[in-house]
Amino acid sequence: MKKTTQLKNMLCNTDLEFLMEAHNGLSARIVEQAGFKCIWASGLALSASLGVRDSNEASWTQVLDIIEFMSDSTSIPILQDGDTGYGNFNNLRRLVRKLEQRDIAGVCIEDKLFPKTNSFLSEHQPLADIDEFCGKIKAGKDTQLDDDFCIVARVEAFIAGWGVDEVLKRAIAYHEAGADAVLIHSKITAFDEIASFMREWDDRGPVVIVPTKYYQTPTSIFREYNISLVIWANQLMRSAITAMKRTAMQICETQSLIDVEERIATLSEVFRLQNADELLQAEKRYLPAVERSKV
Amino acid sequence: MKKTTQLKNMLCNTDLEFLMEAHNGLSARIVEQAGFKCIWASGLALSASLGVRDSNEASWTQVLDIIEFMSDSTSIPILQDGDTGYGNFNNLRRLVRKLEQRDIAGVCIEDKLFPKTNSFLSEHQPLADIDEFCGKIKAGKDTQLDDDFCIVARVEAFIAGWGVDEVLKRAIAYHEAGADAVLIHSKITAFDEIASFMREWDDRGPVVIVPTKYYQTPTSIFREYNISLVIWANQLMRSAITAMKRTAMQICETQSLIDVEERIATLSEVFRLQNADELLQAEKRYLPAVERSKV
Amino acid sequence: MKKTTQLKNMLCNTDLEFLMEAHNGLSARIVEQAGFKCIWASGLALSASLGVRDSNEASWTQVLDIIEFMSDSTSIPILQDGDTGYGNFNNLRRLVRKLEQRDIAGVCIEDKLFPKTNSFLSEHQPLADIDEFCGKIKAGKDTQLDDDFCIVARVEAFIAGWGVDEVLKRAIAYHEAGADAVLIHSKITAFDEIASFMREWDDRGPVVIVPTKYYQTPTSIFREYNISLVIWANQLMRSAITAMKRTAMQICETQSLIDVEERIATLSEVFRLQNADELLQAEKRYLPAVERSKV
Amino acid sequence: MKKTTQLKNMLCNTDLEFLMEAHNGLSARIVEQAGFKCIWASGLALSASLGVRDSNEASWTQVLDIIEFMSDSTSIPILQDGDTGYGNFNNLRRLVRKLEQRDIAGVCIEDKLFPKTNSFLSEHQPLADIDEFCGKIKAGKDTQLDDDFCIVARVEAFIAGWGVDEVLKRAIAYHEAGADAVLIHSKITAFDEIASFMREWDDRGPVVIVPTKYYQTPTSIFREYNISLVIWANQLMRSAITAMKRTAMQICETQSLIDVEERIATLSEVFRLQNADELLQAEKRYLPAVERSKV
Repeated sequence: MKKTTQLKNMLCNTDLEFLMEAHNGLSARIVEQAGFKCIWASGLALSASLGVRDSNEASWTQVLDIIEFMSDSTSIPILQDGDTGYGNFNNLRRLVRKLEQRDIAGVCIEDKLFPKTNSFLSEHQPLADIDEFCGKIKAGKDTQLDDDFCIVARVEAFIAGWGVDEVLKRAIAYHEAGADAVLIHSKITAFDEIASFMREWDDRGPVVIVPTKYYQTPTSIFREYNISLVIWANQLMRSAITAMKRTAMQICETQSLIDVEERIATLSEVFRLQNADELLQAEKRYLPAVERSKV
Repeated sequence: MKKTTQLKNMLCNTDLEFLMEAHNGLSARIVEQAGFKCIWASGLALSASLGVRDSNEASWTQVLDIIEFMSDSTSIPILQDGDTGYGNFNNLRRLVRKLEQRDIAGVCIEDKLFPKTNSFLSEHQPLADIDEFCGKIKAGKDTQLDDDFCIVARVEAFIAGWGVDEVLKRAIAYHEAGADAVLIHSKITAFDEIASFMREWDDRGPVVIVPTKYYQTPTSIFREYNISLVIWANQLMRSAITAMKRTAMQICETQSLIDVEERIATLSEVFRLQNADELLQAEKRYLPAVERSKV
Repeated sequence: MKKTTQLKNMLCNTDLEFLMEAHNGLSARIVEQAGFKCIWASGLALSASLGVRDSNEASWTQVLDIIEFMSDSTSIPILQDGDTGYGNFNNLRRLVRKLEQRDIAGVCIEDKLFPKTNSFLSEHQPLADIDEFCGKIKAGKDTQLDDDFCIVARVEAFIAGWGVDEVLKRAIAYHEAGADAVLIHSKITAFDEIASFMREWDDRGPVVIVPTKYYQTPTSIFREYNISLVIWANQLMRSAITAMKRTAMQICETQSLIDVEERIATLSEVFRLQNADELLQAEKRYLPAVERSKV
Repeated sequence: MKKTTQLKNMLCNTDLEFLMEAHNGLSARIVEQAGFKCIWASGLALSASLGVRDSNEASWTQVLDIIEFMSDSTSIPILQDGDTGYGNFNNLRRLVRKLEQRDIAGVCIEDKLFPKTNSFLSEHQPLADIDEFCGKIKAGKDTQLDDDFCIVARVEAFIAGWGVDEVLKRAIAYHEAGADAVLIHSKITAFDEIASFMREWDDRGPVVIVPTKYYQTPTSIFREYNISLVIWANQLMRSAITAMKRTAMQICETQSLIDVEERIATLSEVFRLQNADELLQAEKRYLPAVERSKV
């Protein structure tokens, strides 16, 4: 089944599904091998891993290059965190075309202004004009060649300090503009904002959430409220940070690998994750015997 | 002090120094903050993190783009693992020019053939012709604009199954061709090969080693043998793998972040590593008050 | 019809068809609008336009980025001049995958060594081992997902000073390895070498030629000998050079545009070639009235 | 002399100087060889040559990659047409840092909104807020490491339909914010707007103009009004279009090169422009005799 169709089905069926963050080809492969059915190509995690800020410091094509590596490394769909679409409706049109070429299943765009600021970093961020954002959604939908490519509209109104009415107004407008789903973001530590939205939403279309801050809400609640997708948005990158800091500090202090070697992945595991065996087999097929004897 | 000069001094002074692997801007910053004085931009770690093999699957400019992010994220020197120089002497000339522009302190090139295979992956890999490799070193040295940019010549003869005589012959030739240091690679689990080389080398120039396989050799031995630099070549990437696998599997199984949240880096730590504060300060300086009130 | 199928048909039908060189999105569009049915993405023209040599100084992904712009700008198929495939069989596999994603119809690879030298620049260039090159062709064919993607095998034996026997031996081997066509290159100013090959070839498969040096041979001869495709390999880039030199020198000397303005394309023509009108129409569809009034 | 210093001097001395447009490494070299002292890396010409619109369809790093090739191909300074700086002050900071690394002498930014529209394409384009644009200029100047790197502030107020008062107010503000020069753009076919500005400007700082539309104004008038730099903004690209169209149509129609060959640059000229000879010499220095005999 096409990756786009896989994602579309996850949005449309009634089961709650989960997306796990990845930020490069390696973490994407780990997400797939852990059993997840879909990958969240997080803007925060990706920018953090590159060493820049989540403020569109990396260009959209630099982001695209990383996501292409992620897509090449995996067979499950990727939903890209496309920030604001990196400009206006025309920039989004180019993005959609490029994502489809690279076999990305969908993009999530948020109703903020370019260059964006991370949602957890400042208060009262200005939101996009509703009509302008609806035009962007329509332009994206009109551009996609594959009917199943998904455009998820992320509503930042709760984040920006607005109430459920503004969130609902926006969600309805984006849904009517053609968004395949709405992502309702919230940064309070309880499920209250999302719950208030869901009570009004009346199942107009699939809803995606990101429980980074309200992670203590039991998943059963998400099911109860008929959420379609849950995005675990940045935990692999944060795990990697903790592990790398510990290892770096320990090696720096002890000037030795001895205490580290046992608790890190083996080189064989690295080669397995790189699919090194496939190349070895391919060399037998495609390299002349004389060349093979050399390698 | 220029980054090139810092690396040059580490090679030339009598103290043993250590380089820690990094593979993106994030890990590079972690290396610096852990207290290391120099970064090893590992080809294996970088390709693994991109999701490709250590066989020149990523183009040299894709590698360069990642290294540029690493350089921008840090203030300590970076020694790039430049594989074979990605072609002949002319390809190396372009590489050296591009590395200098991006403030990379040096490059390490190995005497194998393009496209390369990871040293731990196959036996009896063919080596470069000595004269051809010496020409490559000379071309690199003639190209650099900054006198302190370092070219390290990596001898793969032990890896390819040759004895100390071949290693010595190559090391001497590369040293005489202008290499700022030789890196003697070995994949046995003891220090014996390196020791046999050092006994013959007679301190002709700085020697760099990579104790990935003979990590149980005490660091005091490296000092005794007058090694200049030790490269811890891939441990951060391997730490990240272990941590990400564990987190991904746990979240996939429990469908919850609860058991994970406490042991991974906080979002504040992520923002700190991204230097988010600097941008907040800069907004106060450069954005009009009316704009600031919006963010 | 798919671009790949268009190219495949041109190779397989009995009519003589012509490919015109392009080296960026602009020249590609000019080729299409002039009435050609297929574009030759020339390595020489592309490297010259970038300002580097035809010796793999630009990385394969830098080349790919330019070709992607060319593909996005046009609706006719592109045959890429893929040099040697930028490495071994494995590098070609990656190339084929990337080309297919970018809707390129086929690739032409030549039996020389990486990094390549332009065929007109030096004598007696070493050729690839036949078995190794056949393995590369097979690997490429096994990788393509679209059955109609074309791999053209370019035989450089005449260029390297060999006779028709070596050329024939190689052409047959490459054909049997799965190449969709062979390109027989010749740098003498007469059709003799190609003619000698065609007499022996016995229509085993489609033959492509590049009459840069024997351009005085009438096209009727090509038809007579049952050539499938003729590549006009670099004339647009060379036209641009002549025109730009003249304009630059004249403006530099006269310090004025007056004598130049009348003979260069108007700005309207530039905007037409950029398809500026489509964006204007799209703004009416996708931008809110208030935004439109601003633009 | 550093490229930045060369440009700075051209801005600051009293002689009228001329910049010629280039859009890739090839055209940049042609500009230098024609005798110009500085290159204008035009956004319009560069986007047109890539095959996209002058509306920030190419990402800023895709533009940067092309400009890097231009810089590598030439020894005279390049002033980059940096559009709006590709976002806010923070995006400009990254741009300045990247331009300096690639040895670009300066950047010109315009007081419009991202994504930009070409100045000749629509009426009454909205302008940037003055304070916001001044903050951008300051951020750029504070970021540059080389004191002589130039930031030119382009005033689009005439283009947007405003009078000389608005233009003057903006020019003064940008000058006081630290701009090394102001570029006053005008799209009427007479010099009147620029003249009206110059009469009020009172030589507060260097002024740059782009006489694309008022090209019939004699250059002596520019001197009289004490203009510092004249930019011939797009004529090489437009020359190339005319020449390539003619050649493509003629070859398509005649199915022959015969009528074309005589009036286009020879292959030798192409190789000369690529500096092929330098590589031949270098091969003698750096390749072993055995390898040389092969090439």
